[in-house]
Amino acid sequence: MFPEYDVIVVGAGHAGCEAAAAAANLGSKVLLVTMNMQTIAQMSCNPAMGGIAKGQIVREIDAMGGYSGIVTDISMIQFRMLNLSKGPAMWSPRAQNDRMLFAATWREMLEKTPNVDFYQDMVRSLIIKEGRACGVVTGLGHHIPSKSVVITSGTFLNGIIHIGEKQFGGGRVAEKAATGITEQLVELGFESDRLKTGTPPRIDGRSLDYSKMEEQKGDDEIVGFSYTGTKKPVEQRSCWITYTSQKVHDILKTGFDRSPMYTGRIEGTGPRYCPSIEDKINRFAERERHQLFVEPEGWNTIEIYVNGFSTSLPEEVQIAALRQVAGFENVRVFRPGYAIEYDYFPPTQLNHSLETKLISNLFFAGQINGTTGYEEAACQGLMAGINAHQKAKELEPVILKRSDAYIGVLIDDLISKGTEEPYRMFTSRAEFRTILRQDNADLRLTELSYRLGLASQDRMDKVISKRDGVEKIKDILKEISLEPNEADGFLAENNSAPLPQKQKAIQLLLRPNITLDAMIAGLPKIQQALNGFTDEIIEQADIQIKYNVYIEKEKELVKRMNQLEDLLIPENFDYDRILSLSAEAMQKFKRIKPRTLGQASRISGVNPSDVQILMVYMGR
Amino acid sequence: MFPEYDVIVVGAGHAGCEAAAAAANLGSKVLLVTMNMQTIAQMSCNPAMGGIAKGQIVREIDAMGGYSGIVTDISMIQFRMLNLSKGPAMWSPRAQNDRMLFAATWREMLEKTPNVDFYQDMVRSLIIKEGRACGVVTGLGHHIPSKSVVITSGTFLNGIIHIGEKQFGGGRVAEKAATGITEQLVELGFESDRLKTGTPPRIDGRSLDYSKMEEQKGDDEIVGFSYTGTKKPVEQRSCWITYTSQKVHDILKTGFDRSPMYTGRIEGTGPRYCPSIEDKINRFAERERHQLFVEPEGWNTIEIYVNGFSTSLPEEVQIAALRQVAGFENVRVFRPGYAIEYDYFPPTQLNHSLETKLISNLFFAGQINGTTGYEEAACQGLMAGINAHQKAKELEPVILKRSDAYIGVLIDDLISKGTEEPYRMFTSRAEFRTILRQDNADLRLTELSYRLGLASQDRMDKVISKRDGVEKIKDILKEISLEPNEADGFLAENNSAPLPQKQKAIQLLLRPNITLDAMIAGLPKIQQALNGFTDEIIEQADIQIKYNVYIEKEKELVKRMNQLEDLLIPENFDYDRILSLSAEAMQKFKRIKPRTLGQASRISGVNPSDVQILMVYMGR
Repeated sequence: MFPEYDVIVVGAGHAGCEAAAAAANLGSKVLLVTMNMQTIAQMSCNPAMGGIAKGQIVREIDAMGGYSGIVTDISMIQFRMLNLSKGPAMWSPRAQNDRMLFAATWREMLEKTPNVDFYQDMVRSLIIKEGRACGVVTGLGHHIPSKSVVITSGTFLNGIIHIGEKQFGGGRVAEKAATGITEQLVELGFESDRLKTGTPPRIDGRSLDYSKMEEQKGDDEIVGFSYTGTKKPVEQRSCWITYTSQKVHDILKTGFDRSPMYTGRIEGTGPRYCPSIEDKINRFAERERHQLFVEPEGWNTIEIYVNGFSTSLPEEVQIAALRQVAGFENVRVFRPGYAIEYDYFPPTQLNHSLETKLISNLFFAGQINGTTGYEEAACQGLMAGINAHQKAKELEPVILKRSDAYIGVLIDDLISKGTEEPYRMFTSRAEFRTILRQDNADLRLTELSYRLGLASQDRMDKVISKRDGVEKIKDILKEISLEPNEADGFLAENNSAPLPQKQKAIQLLLRPNITLDAMIAGLPKIQQALNGFTDEIIEQADIQIKYNVYIEKEKELVKRMNQLEDLLIPENFDYDRILSLSAEAMQKFKRIKPRTLGQASRISGVNPSDVQILMVYMGR
Repeated sequence: MFPEYDVIVVGAGHAGCEAAAAAANLGSKVLLVTMNMQTIAQMSCNPAMGGIAKGQIVREIDAMGGYSGIVTDISMIQFRMLNLSKGPAMWSPRAQNDRMLFAATWREMLEKTPNVDFYQDMVRSLIIKEGRACGVVTGLGHHIPSKSVVITSGTFLNGIIHIGEKQFGGGRVAEKAATGITEQLVELGFESDRLKTGTPPRIDGRSLDYSKMEEQKGDDEIVGFSYTGTKKPVEQRSCWITYTSQKVHDILKTGFDRSPMYTGRIEGTGPRYCPSIEDKINRFAERERHQLFVEPEGWNTIEIYVNGFSTSLPEEVQIAALRQVAGFENVRVFRPGYAIEYDYFPPTQLNHSLETKLISNLFFAGQINGTTGYEEAACQGLMAGINAHQKAKELEPVILKRSDAYIGVLIDDLISKGTEEPYRMFTSRAEFRTILRQDNADLRLTELSYRLGLASQDRMDKVISKRDGVEKIKDILKEISLEPNEADGFLAENNSAPLPQKQKAIQLLLRPNITLDAMIAGLPKIQQALNGFTDEIIEQADIQIKYNVYIEKEKELVKRMNQLEDLLIPENFDYDRILSLSAEAMQKFKRIKPRTLGQASRISGVNPSDVQILMVYMGR
């Protein structure tokens, strides 16, 4: 009834959609299996993409030829570049999205992708032969063969929803949970555990008093996520900021004795950096208030998402507490917040390619690996999709290094350190964040993706012209000299000291107050010389010149790290013979099987001395 | 936590949405409770509205101030006026819709309706005090008070889905069933039973060979459903027609021993006039083929709905059979067809207002009353919403007579005759179908709706101007006389005999081949006199003049019927004392409690003699 597919993707959330698109665009015949074709690419939690570190990931996905950036651009209702007051390494794009339009756009893009087939059914087990995944079995009993399988189960595996003392099975509210896969994998020797996440109430925007809140508008100029230059909206919608108070906290506390978090009914660990409101007032008891973001759910809906108020307290407590928030005095709730527990598989059971170590041709991506966040899920889906294709076609795995991308950091963290709570990306997790900027993801990644056959010629051409443009600008600025009488008026206007003597234009850019934009605006010679370059290229040149010292320093560090990274540990290296290893290092090495000396060094509990010893033995 | 509402509507399908909109627009404070706010106004089965008799209902809903016509117009991808070769009583508008856009548009319209609140939860029971419904209890345990309750549970009450030998609970595939209400109502003395309906597979349009099918385009001119003049699409999408064959039937038969229909697993009765394909080949064994309509699911999707192939056979049989259909040789299935069983309450337990006889202030609408079809559900929702409002405000119920509207026929049929299989509307069910046309629903109903406060002033003004225009045209045509030399050329062109002498223009219209449009085009005198009237008014005048004899005759019949209809039977009439009634009539009268002698006469099993006897006794 079904042909043999190259890749079957199980689940159609952010991870599953990216996986299906990537594998199909590389030439694999892909089947995307979802429990409900009406709910492809749902934003299960907040109607937003990007943010600090997460925005960088979306741009990386886009540079690699994934769809998340394009979908986000098409469906955004607001855009902000966060952290603009800091250095460019911290600039982070973030969008509010129209929830329904986001899902509809994703589905439309997948439908337009040749090689992607769809099938609506629950996958209840995998077909495994001789340690290799070679298809899936569905709830209706179909055996569908494939060369690789990618599982992106989100919160659906044995999902249990909690609201106060109520609990019921489900993958999201009113949607059924998925069963069977965990049990089979555990039987095969996988380790599985429970995690928890939560979502805030959705409320009626008509019941709010916005005059009591602070408006948060979008940026005047929308940069967006995709390097393909998708069309951006003309108007934008505002968000609003308000705060909890001591009174809100006091009311919330009255529900603690019925909270599934505190009565022990929830066993899974929740996301530390996206805590529930009850967790916040518990952990930060000294804080008098917490910020809430009032986010519209779309262009034309009255529904509002209360970002910052994730909770699984009894609903009447949720509402009573919300009513004490400024502007929420008469709030009407459409749907209560809730917590959901689900199965995940500690990700140290994976290789860098996101293939499982126990079963070959089986890939995991997204929440099944213990992560939280749409962006974290999407980028894993992309890489799992690429590698499921590579495996199906007997090609080498594609692995991004920590110095290549946040995606590389994320996957390396997961598989080397594992995670016991939902893992979220931060800029602080990346040791090379001056290099891993949102503005240069295309320069970093598109060429790799193009060589794989994923990024289009058009994308590659854009990158080449950007790269060339930047180099041309550097050359021009090195050539042009400015006399004091040419530059001093401009410098005075920009609070910068006058020129002591004639100077190269490029030197001026190293001054803290001087940007290339300002030079173009204030120095006719520069304006004339750089006429015709796009804003994007000018900004890139500006950043590369201004931060050159830091960038070069970081590149030096990368080179040094990559020396360790280049030292591959043989696949079946016999750790037992290294008697001088610490017991903990021995145990972790044997379990995690690091691919390189670099990875070995990042495993938690492994000391530099263990790495030294290992290096010595490998030398032999 | 919740205020007291005037009306709570349970369920947000076609019936629930119309009920909420109607009650709110009349001024009631309405709460719409749905299990999932993401799935408001789903088209659970085919992506189409209208059709024979059903199209008339949608126009009636629109004339009454309901939303279904507007939503259909906004989301249509194709429009056809069916039966144009027959008389105008048979003309029936039908639209293909973009499934997602239809739901999104409904939700947007409801959100823009003041007085409609939303709440996402399952209703598990009703609050009943002294025989009166006064609120609902939700799955999360909330008690929400209200003056009236409308239940529109669709296929969700104890829904069980069947595909071959597989069966599982659900209100639709991947959505949970609702529980609790049936059990409570049965305990209160309600009678409940099971019905069954089904849906065909959804398939991948990319896998079809359209060159082997017949194209079915939309009409050149889109009439649409709403009298408000909503904007119609510029382009349209085609449907395609293909056929089953003996070979298809043979393959289907191989699954009969595993069919839930034939193995007894399905207890509920299915819709006779929308049968499954297995039912068709079983009941019409002599037919060599059945027509299938290949309907696109929207503007931009590759998903296709196979109208005519509803089935609950094992999926591999569905697919094997489909592959024998011309154009379907390589078909890929996205989601299998399935059958679903659900609870309904035989509708003889209702009054004409759709209020239950047992529990006051409780109203039922849609599939819970044993009907099938979006249009049938929507119009009941509209009337239940109106009457729930009327009851909450202690106003008289609003009842449409059989001579007012198909809606009146439908409700009168349901409550007088009951139904043991899913009830679908047909023109043949209406004894006054010459009057109940799609073109005059506004003339028939808008004034009533306007007086209630439902139809807007704008709608009423349009109706008045239409009515006045038609009368003006009639006057003009009565005044104008045509000489033979003026008319004969035109008549010859239209295959009509020459004038024997000077004749009133209006007389010409009675000739079978002559339309008012043609007269305007072919007779300069008429063209000049009717210049400035809209197409809609000209068509209406044409129909009223041409079919005047039939219309008048039917109006006479209506008058006579209404005499019986005006004879109200006292609410607690003591049938026991009429010893001469037949036992069956006695039993039915006591159970159904007909409101009028007219209704009594339509109860199945009641003979004219029983009605005569009843009339005599009532006279005393």
